[in-house]
Amino acid sequence: MTMKVTSPVEKENDFSSFLKPESIAIIGASNDPGKISGRPIEYLLRYGYEGKIYPVNPKYDSIQGLKSYRSIQELPMGVDLAIIAIGAKYVVQNLKACIEKQVKSCMIFSSGFAEMGEEGRKLQEEISVIAAQSGLFIIGPNCQGLANLKQRSITSFSTAFVEGDLVNGSSAILSQSGAVAAMVYNMQKEEGTGIKYWASTGNESDINIPRIATYILEDDDINMIQIYMESIKDGEELIDLGKKSVELDKPVLVLKPGKSEEAQKAASSHTGALAAEDAVINKAFDQFGLVRVDDVNELSSFSKVFRLDKRVKGKNVAILSNSGGLGVMMVDKCKEFGLNLAEFEEETIKRLEGILPIFASFENPIDVTAQLLNDKELLSNALPILMDDPNVDIILFGLGIIGKGYDIDTIMGDIIEAQSVGEKLIGVAWVGSQKGKVEIFNKNDVPAFEDPSLCVKAFAKYAQYCIEAKGNSTINDSITLFDMTELLVSAETHNGFMSEYDSKRVLKDNFPIGKGFVCGSSSELLELSEQLNFPVVLKVNSPKIQHKSDIGGVKLNIKNKQELLSVYSNMKSNELLVDGNGNLETIVEEMADSGFEISLGMKKDPVFGPVIMVASGGVFIEVLKDFQLLIPPISNEQAKAAIENLMMFPVMKGARGSTPKDIDSLVDVVVKFSQFVVQNEAFLEEIDLNPVIVHEEGKGVTIVDALIKNVRSSEHID
Amino acid sequence: MTMKVTSPVEKENDFSSFLKPESIAIIGASNDPGKISGRPIEYLLRYGYEGKIYPVNPKYDSIQGLKSYRSIQELPMGVDLAIIAIGAKYVVQNLKACIEKQVKSCMIFSSGFAEMGEEGRKLQEEISVIAAQSGLFIIGPNCQGLANLKQRSITSFSTAFVEGDLVNGSSAILSQSGAVAAMVYNMQKEEGTGIKYWASTGNESDINIPRIATYILEDDDINMIQIYMESIKDGEELIDLGKKSVELDKPVLVLKPGKSEEAQKAASSHTGALAAEDAVINKAFDQFGLVRVDDVNELSSFSKVFRLDKRVKGKNVAILSNSGGLGVMMVDKCKEFGLNLAEFEEETIKRLEGILPIFASFENPIDVTAQLLNDKELLSNALPILMDDPNVDIILFGLGIIGKGYDIDTIMGDIIEAQSVGEKLIGVAWVGSQKGKVEIFNKNDVPAFEDPSLCVKAFAKYAQYCIEAKGNSTINDSITLFDMTELLVSAETHNGFMSEYDSKRVLKDNFPIGKGFVCGSSSELLELSEQLNFPVVLKVNSPKIQHKSDIGGVKLNIKNKQELLSVYSNMKSNELLVDGNGNLETIVEEMADSGFEISLGMKKDPVFGPVIMVASGGVFIEVLKDFQLLIPPISNEQAKAAIENLMMFPVMKGARGSTPKDIDSLVDVVVKFSQFVVQNEAFLEEIDLNPVIVHEEGKGVTIVDALIKNVRSSEHID
Repeated sequence: MTMKVTSPVEKENDFSSFLKPESIAIIGASNDPGKISGRPIEYLLRYGYEGKIYPVNPKYDSIQGLKSYRSIQELPMGVDLAIIAIGAKYVVQNLKACIEKQVKSCMIFSSGFAEMGEEGRKLQEEISVIAAQSGLFIIGPNCQGLANLKQRSITSFSTAFVEGDLVNGSSAILSQSGAVAAMVYNMQKEEGTGIKYWASTGNESDINIPRIATYILEDDDINMIQIYMESIKDGEELIDLGKKSVELDKPVLVLKPGKSEEAQKAASSHTGALAAEDAVINKAFDQFGLVRVDDVNELSSFSKVFRLDKRVKGKNVAILSNSGGLGVMMVDKCKEFGLNLAEFEEETIKRLEGILPIFASFENPIDVTAQLLNDKELLSNALPILMDDPNVDIILFGLGIIGKGYDIDTIMGDIIEAQSVGEKLIGVAWVGSQKGKVEIFNKNDVPAFEDPSLCVKAFAKYAQYCIEAKGNSTINDSITLFDMTELLVSAETHNGFMSEYDSKRVLKDNFPIGKGFVCGSSSELLELSEQLNFPVVLKVNSPKIQHKSDIGGVKLNIKNKQELLSVYSNMKSNELLVDGNGNLETIVEEMADSGFEISLGMKKDPVFGPVIMVASGGVFIEVLKDFQLLIPPISNEQAKAAIENLMMFPVMKGARGSTPKDIDSLVDVVVKFSQFVVQNEAFLEEIDLNPVIVHEEGKGVTIVDALIKNVRSSEHID
Repeated sequence: MTMKVTSPVEKENDFSSFLKPESIAIIGASNDPGKISGRPIEYLLRYGYEGKIYPVNPKYDSIQGLKSYRSIQELPMGVDLAIIAIGAKYVVQNLKACIEKQVKSCMIFSSGFAEMGEEGRKLQEEISVIAAQSGLFIIGPNCQGLANLKQRSITSFSTAFVEGDLVNGSSAILSQSGAVAAMVYNMQKEEGTGIKYWASTGNESDINIPRIATYILEDDDINMIQIYMESIKDGEELIDLGKKSVELDKPVLVLKPGKSEEAQKAASSHTGALAAEDAVINKAFDQFGLVRVDDVNELSSFSKVFRLDKRVKGKNVAILSNSGGLGVMMVDKCKEFGLNLAEFEEETIKRLEGILPIFASFENPIDVTAQLLNDKELLSNALPILMDDPNVDIILFGLGIIGKGYDIDTIMGDIIEAQSVGEKLIGVAWVGSQKGKVEIFNKNDVPAFEDPSLCVKAFAKYAQYCIEAKGNSTINDSITLFDMTELLVSAETHNGFMSEYDSKRVLKDNFPIGKGFVCGSSSELLELSEQLNFPVVLKVNSPKIQHKSDIGGVKLNIKNKQELLSVYSNMKSNELLVDGNGNLETIVEEMADSGFEISLGMKKDPVFGPVIMVASGGVFIEVLKDFQLLIPPISNEQAKAAIENLMMFPVMKGARGSTPKDIDSLVDVVVKFSQFVVQNEAFLEEIDLNPVIVHEEGKGVTIVDALIKNVRSSEHID
């Protein structure tokens, strides 16, 4: 072990001190192997950790048979990892002592921090500051520790390691909750798959899951990661993780509860973290290639499929079953979760007819029937025929209870062989399986499930990962936009809001805004309206008025000058529209052609920053919640997909005799808008373009109303 | 055993001959206990069936140690049940021989019937005819038989009974597929709950699942039924089952696959049955109190909850866990599946604070934390506090792996005790449970699941059953409608379609139709329009033209007589609108006030008969699939609920400044319409009222267009 000083640069790149520690100190070590501060020592000894172990406790000379140190000061310099298992109020002074001894990383088991109200929160803040200012990595507090099962360094007190031997594997489970990490590891052990890294990160005062995960993905032993996280503190780190996952083609499964407000509240009360909106989180996962799962069962069992090296090119499934009923049920689940039923080639059906009993089903789903009892090789004989069919990507076996009377070992051997040498991906749903057999399948890289629905869902998610999550389409960050900084910085605002006219001035060089002018008097109005084609629209223009229509500040479809003047004079006599001196400022604009109304906007998420929303306008956004989110910058394909995913998209496309609208132009506007948001993020708090009228094909788009909330309203600048 | 002749009346009411047979013959019996025709004998002998067993085989004097009969003729008269396990082509003659010996019921194991193309279908038809004409009950063909586990009469060849002992219980599993019935029984056995009846009904040439189920519900040993069915042949029988289930308050769980077209196709190819539309089936289940489940896992495991006698009055759940993460995940699932998180009384929180560690969560979900390792009674102490809170209906335990170091037996004993004496319903989700413990919970009437999502979903479905499925609201079949039979029978039709005017004449005495006349000439038009208020609408009227607008046959908003004449003359010069002699028949009507457009219709489902559809009109029905189905007759509450479930309902109710519409009047129209459909079912094939305009509150509803397809178009009458 070398004794170099940890530098900030190293801090960002090398987590080996806690993921593969060569020396471990336990501060507050206990002689009792059942106690929280005794267990890691017991685990390290029992599982045969080969590095150095330094128990620290002022009361003893020896702990669990090891030489014990009276204080941190007595430790050698540069220990890799110190576990701190003492009262919360002593943690900070011990961290400082560790820093003096150039300890590289500290793991805090102690509770009593952000999960426990204001005082704890302050104490945790101190820890974060220490981590930021020193070279020390800190895991926890309120965590159950880490484990490297390959290295056999179990620096945890989790009951997950109390019984049985360690089962090493090609995955990692990273969880804020130690209990959940334990559940997942135990479920996988029972099903025959293991993990290399086990981590419970607790309150995450310094090191968090996305950072560990991004680091671990580079590990050659690892080909996937499983994550449970209750809170996301930094959207960018999560996005980086997604990008790394896509780059290395190593899938990351994430269970993020808190879809409901109630669960979010419960999660934040027990981890003390702020919450991003769930729809935004969902979009972020989706957009950046992270695979979101729905519950702890999925988090553990889907790893049976995702840990494989075998990728699929398509979603066409052949189902091979000894129960017609099971086959039918699996077809339903395929459709529900987005897999297709493969259409067999004629040759395939002919060959199947040659080997199956006459009352079997030769079409997909194939049902070899209970005849399997008499003809024990039916499944084994059908398998190579399906392996040969180019229309099949995935073969799923649906096995009803196959007990006495079946030659199950031969069937299993044939399936395992086909998985290992063949190109197609094979899986097994085995309802009422024989004990231990599912484990054998999994150990031999044939994902096997007892629940057919879960089996189909796992393969559907996997196919989606293989096909869709891989290549992120090219982002159009090369679009040249005119720089509008000056206007954004100088415009008059009220509570951060700019007037409609100023908002449009910011946009007009880059976006399609109708022709119009700002006018402060009737004479000006008359003069400028000369340059416009009637009908026109007259609107009050003021940074103080955001909901113009509600107070009579908008008049559409004004047909001539005379009407225009009369509308102006009406508005001028409306107290709600004029300023303190009785002056009225208006915008006069050409009336836009009709079309499909879209609402395009931007809001800032506390975790992910600017998020773009495309929605069906008018009543639909409210009543149908017909909106799609995007995290900028985005590609043309992403904008297009968002628009196509709107429920009302068929109407835009021309359903029921409506004329098709100019969707390409809308895509352009959305992509440009995302770029505009990225370029001007520092000055923008919120944008609302509503309505944006999408005209007939070839006739473009018009942004009819625009409202920009400047960042000056928030604490970022002022 | 008495030897009375089975009469048709008895046939409908008494299934004891096959559900509780006192004598059993096996036609084609085998000496080999592993063969299909040998297994039932082996099962009957091994499990200790106490009735008479008569093997029949021309080749042997003794089979499996029993006296064998050379032919059916040699059997005593009036055997309760004969199992037929011989080649398909010999089945009919054997049935006839059974009838001569006054056998009461026959069960056909043989394959080669409707599941195998045209010839098999004909053979099966013969069997159905025999069943209908004789007093004989027939189960199958292509079935795996029945079992009464209490009586130990296992008249099946299913491998479900090969191993272990029988586990009797208070449920029944009825399935067309023998494999699925076997899976469900085995899954339940493993989890510690049993069944009394096990049935696989195969092709159902005579006796089908709804009939067996309706009969079994009356059995005092039975308090729920589990059904797997791939096809529904008779909607009425299913509805009767639902009504019986509601009447006796014994829940019926149904797994009906075929939600996707592909699965429907596969199911019909392997059972040879026609399929009802899935949306209709779903509605039928919902409307008549049957509980639909999503997969075989739910079908088996939900029985753990539904078999209990304990009903709940509300959906408020308290979650009690030793893992914060598990608690949060369960909250998400509660919200997803429709349970509420109980709000504790202050007293409850105070008492919890008194017993839980300071860093625990005292609010719902309660997290006692890993402190349970040190303080082993935390869960047991918290439980009675929750039992006392009147705001709690259901208590769900979320147990993370509890292995060594926990006092699990005490906790389990306390939970079982509380379930048995307390009023609240208790359930357990135990991730990574200790072997055999879940079984103990279930045997002691505490539903326990290893999958927390499945646990929450089971309790959610159960609470919904207890609260919603029970009391079907009163049907308004007392509404007096004018009898329109004469008009329906006499009206001119084309391909069954009546003209708009005739359709409206059929409706007008009972429903709100706008004022209007039919006119065959311009002079008639002028004269009759005197009696109307302009603006009016002019429409072509002909039974031959169903899509009037598409060919210029509708003109709205005609402001005066002059315009009316000019529209009429335009239409008259349109070849598509006039008859062979150049005559034009039109309807002139007052233009209806604007409002929210609804589409109200009726179609006949091949299984359930007339089905009513209420939909948002115009583009929404197509683009949003915004429709609700109802099976008539219906109650006011059901009509109201259907309307309120429309996605666009908030608009009708006045969202975003639109005026609220006359929903009460629409409810009246829908209920009346359902009654009209019931009264005139014999004459109606299809009705389409579109649009039905719902005016402002208090201003009623107008049926603007109507199209009735008369039953004369179909084979029912002509």
